[in-house]
Amino acid sequence: MNLRLVVRQLGTVSLLIAGAMLFSLPWALGETGAPRTNGLVGLGVSIAVCVAAGLAMRHWGRGIQVKLYRKESMAIVGLSWILATILGALPFLFSGTERETGVPMNVADALFESQSGFSTTGATVLTNLEDPEMVPRSILFWRSTTHFLGGLGIMVLFVAMLGQGSAGKALMRAEMPGPSSDSPITRMQHTAWLLCVVYVVLNMVLTAILWLEGLSVFDALCHAFGTMATGGFSTYNASLGHFETVEGVSGVLVEMTVLVFMVLAGTNFMLLYFALRGKFRPLLCDVEWRTYIGVIVLVTAAVICFAFWHRDFHVVKSTFIDQPSAENLDTEIVSAEPHETLPEDEFFPVLGRAIRYGLFQVVSIMTTTGYGTHDFNAWNSFGRGVLFLLMFVGGCAGSTGGGLKVIRHILFLKILGLEVEQSFRPSIVRPLRLGGKALENQDLRRNVVVYFSLILVIFVFSWITIVTFEPDTTWQGRDIGDKLIDSATGVAATLNNIGPGLGTVGATENYAKFSSFTKLLFTLLMMLGRLEIFVILVLFLPSFWRTQ
Amino acid sequence: MNLRLVVRQLGTVSLLIAGAMLFSLPWALGETGAPRTNGLVGLGVSIAVCVAAGLAMRHWGRGIQVKLYRKESMAIVGLSWILATILGALPFLFSGTERETGVPMNVADALFESQSGFSTTGATVLTNLEDPEMVPRSILFWRSTTHFLGGLGIMVLFVAMLGQGSAGKALMRAEMPGPSSDSPITRMQHTAWLLCVVYVVLNMVLTAILWLEGLSVFDALCHAFGTMATGGFSTYNASLGHFETVEGVSGVLVEMTVLVFMVLAGTNFMLLYFALRGKFRPLLCDVEWRTYIGVIVLVTAAVICFAFWHRDFHVVKSTFIDQPSAENLDTEIVSAEPHETLPEDEFFPVLGRAIRYGLFQVVSIMTTTGYGTHDFNAWNSFGRGVLFLLMFVGGCAGSTGGGLKVIRHILFLKILGLEVEQSFRPSIVRPLRLGGKALENQDLRRNVVVYFSLILVIFVFSWITIVTFEPDTTWQGRDIGDKLIDSATGVAATLNNIGPGLGTVGATENYAKFSSFTKLLFTLLMMLGRLEIFVILVLFLPSFWRTQ
Repeated sequence: MNLRLVVRQLGTVSLLIAGAMLFSLPWALGETGAPRTNGLVGLGVSIAVCVAAGLAMRHWGRGIQVKLYRKESMAIVGLSWILATILGALPFLFSGTERETGVPMNVADALFESQSGFSTTGATVLTNLEDPEMVPRSILFWRSTTHFLGGLGIMVLFVAMLGQGSAGKALMRAEMPGPSSDSPITRMQHTAWLLCVVYVVLNMVLTAILWLEGLSVFDALCHAFGTMATGGFSTYNASLGHFETVEGVSGVLVEMTVLVFMVLAGTNFMLLYFALRGKFRPLLCDVEWRTYIGVIVLVTAAVICFAFWHRDFHVVKSTFIDQPSAENLDTEIVSAEPHETLPEDEFFPVLGRAIRYGLFQVVSIMTTTGYGTHDFNAWNSFGRGVLFLLMFVGGCAGSTGGGLKVIRHILFLKILGLEVEQSFRPSIVRPLRLGGKALENQDLRRNVVVYFSLILVIFVFSWITIVTFEPDTTWQGRDIGDKLIDSATGVAATLNNIGPGLGTVGATENYAKFSSFTKLLFTLLMMLGRLEIFVILVLFLPSFWRTQ
Repeated sequence: MNLRLVVRQLGTVSLLIAGAMLFSLPWALGETGAPRTNGLVGLGVSIAVCVAAGLAMRHWGRGIQVKLYRKESMAIVGLSWILATILGALPFLFSGTERETGVPMNVADALFESQSGFSTTGATVLTNLEDPEMVPRSILFWRSTTHFLGGLGIMVLFVAMLGQGSAGKALMRAEMPGPSSDSPITRMQHTAWLLCVVYVVLNMVLTAILWLEGLSVFDALCHAFGTMATGGFSTYNASLGHFETVEGVSGVLVEMTVLVFMVLAGTNFMLLYFALRGKFRPLLCDVEWRTYIGVIVLVTAAVICFAFWHRDFHVVKSTFIDQPSAENLDTEIVSAEPHETLPEDEFFPVLGRAIRYGLFQVVSIMTTTGYGTHDFNAWNSFGRGVLFLLMFVGGCAGSTGGGLKVIRHILFLKILGLEVEQSFRPSIVRPLRLGGKALENQDLRRNVVVYFSLILVIFVFSWITIVTFEPDTTWQGRDIGDKLIDSATGVAATLNNIGPGLGTVGATENYAKFSSFTKLLFTLLMMLGRLEIFVILVLFLPSFWRTQ
């Protein structure tokens, strides 16, 4: 392990983060009073720390010119992400941002919020985003900027080195553009560049559309960042549901715009690049993308049917701010008897609501964005259960979406099918096929299954850890019997980079109430999920650091 | 696929089951009135059907002498188990056994109960076992006999052909007794014979001990069958907790006796055979057994600590019949303040209760027996969560215990460790080691991981199916918010052949309230779990039945 080389790269990361923080400063200048001072101090000190740390690290590692081996590459990626999380947390701390009224964020809060941004999770510990005295707008902008940076980072990593043992890389290579006589490194750099351009362009397009739809530049930028990175940080307590209540803005229009771009953000960016150049065939013929769209359509249809059956959308819950209670769950059982037809109980308005909220929520969870327009925790058990499972599906490989990725699920089920067949035909070994083509990569079969296994193990151990060490008082005012399921969804929502889960981590709730220990565990989970486990896990192995 | 050969073997199975049913007849003769008639008719007709079916099948398949190939072997095992389930269900149907007062068991109920017996699960749909008008004692005896037969079947299958792709077989082969010059088949038959002898001897010893402790011959036999098969069918509504209330019987003594034999039933019977011959070294040095005991001790210690913290055993819940409510869960939060020291709140009585109930429940769940002495659904979240996870651990390979088996967990974690190391050292391939020895079987690594994956997929799909199709009315009088977690534990409890889960399938509850569809799904899960998936799953594949 060549530590100097690693440290030099970390120095560059520090300087880049300092540069990104500069873009939040203007918003501080636009404020007045305490928020202005807090924002300027918070960002200023943070930038100074980042620059100082960056220069120091680059100085220590100067003049090193050696080849990057796999271990060094992994260390750079893993440590960069950790460093970014720490540096990204500084503005929250130095600005005195308040988690709850009068309670400033502590180190665990700030690390959680920073990691939630970089990992494009969108889970928050902030209980009130709309009071600049608690959270200066410049800090809110930095918070959304971490989404943008995280998404950008994933695009680069996807090409550059992530996906060891992932199906995405094997797939992507086959379709990588450019003449095949290029060296692998040149091709990879070229591809990374293209993907980043696509990402930035989509961010700009979405910002422009949202601005045209009546949002302020600030809101348009923040929500574009949150959407394209599949993050989910909003600038309002009611998330996207807020725009329903704003005069001059059509809530439905904003929702539909964000919906379309969420679907795009969960699509393989390589395919989007082709589509932007007018070649739609690769996108439309892609097995993964077709499955991705198929799952969205099927699950939405099922959610709508069951919602009708359980009358989830019959009660008017027009805006998210209402914080609907679970009362409709209790009345489900008697719903078989004829009921008085209130105006809002008519078929088509209910269908409209069901499609609008159902589709949005399915896409929001499946793409791992986590924006909310509706409290899905009040849905029937089927809806809640299926959303929980969708958390593990995630977007397509090569998108900014988290989760296990659609392609892994396709391959996983195919592999298990082959294994069952092999149990009675041990001599016949069939190749793994996708879209009619046999996949050559010999390790792919093992890698996919091992990835699922690792996710399973991490999920189970994190779950029992939270159940064990998180005090029951966190569920005060709620049903303690929900601790098991709420903890499970909390782990799923962070490990898969979604944000909201069920119950006490539900759409109308936040992560503020958890103990610092649990917050740090969630922080680790977000990082593990975002970097597809290995890069972070190896950092904990002594043998990784030993010089061979 | 040679169907005649398969059918001939199924005929033999029918005749064997008819023979086993004969042992239940004497108990019918000991009864009077309606229970006597019902029992005699139920068993008599069932025996007649079994004999007729058996003779017919043997006749159709007569004179066939071909070699058994893998497909035929798998078909015989899978279909035999299904046939046994169907035949075993007949006595429940023909005797008019009542699920609830006035509600006779339907086909789904009977299949569920029969499969629960053969698969040594011990889940029941019978709400009142103690009224002979509802359940004749002879039928109760048949119910327990299915446990005995199921345990015996697993012993034979373990040696004969199960464990394709399982770690157990690879391990067992190395330690198989007998001169190595024997042919594999001779050695296997020899081993199967030895294991069955050990199993029967332990059943007899336990019956004798329980009888000496004051139980009737009937109760002693039934509870010995339930214990040694790691089944869990009792003859009383309060399960083992009943004996607490019987004059002349020491409840603690019975519990401790059953406890010791549950631990034995979850131990590799090969190692027990050596131990019975005075060689304790193989048992004490076995990595799997040491882990098995270690997990029991550690989890019990943790459960006791957390139970103290949450004051689970401070309230007197001496007998199981009390059906303690979840009230102590609600008062947990205030338990920090000093409380009045009631006599039952003193340290040592509480510690005694905690050890007694905690240890018993941990062993009962981990060995997949499922006997109850205490309502663990009222435990704190840690206790409930850890019991849920223990369900997936199970006993040792080569025991009658279900679950995934301890050895698979050991290998699984080792394999994942190796995979993480390989991610940064792709050129170094280490062998999988166990107890200092490298495991040669090349397929083992893949098989263990694939087995976990299959369990995961089956678990997830069954869970969402139950959440979707089981009506909410099943949770009437309970919190519908528990549907997700209760369904999950129901699937875990049947797939791993335990019996009780949490909430509505908890220790004081039963499976009677579920819809027939869900009962049949549970039946399938019990079979899949007991036969380690493959043998049942292939029966659903058209390519399995196609002649090559």
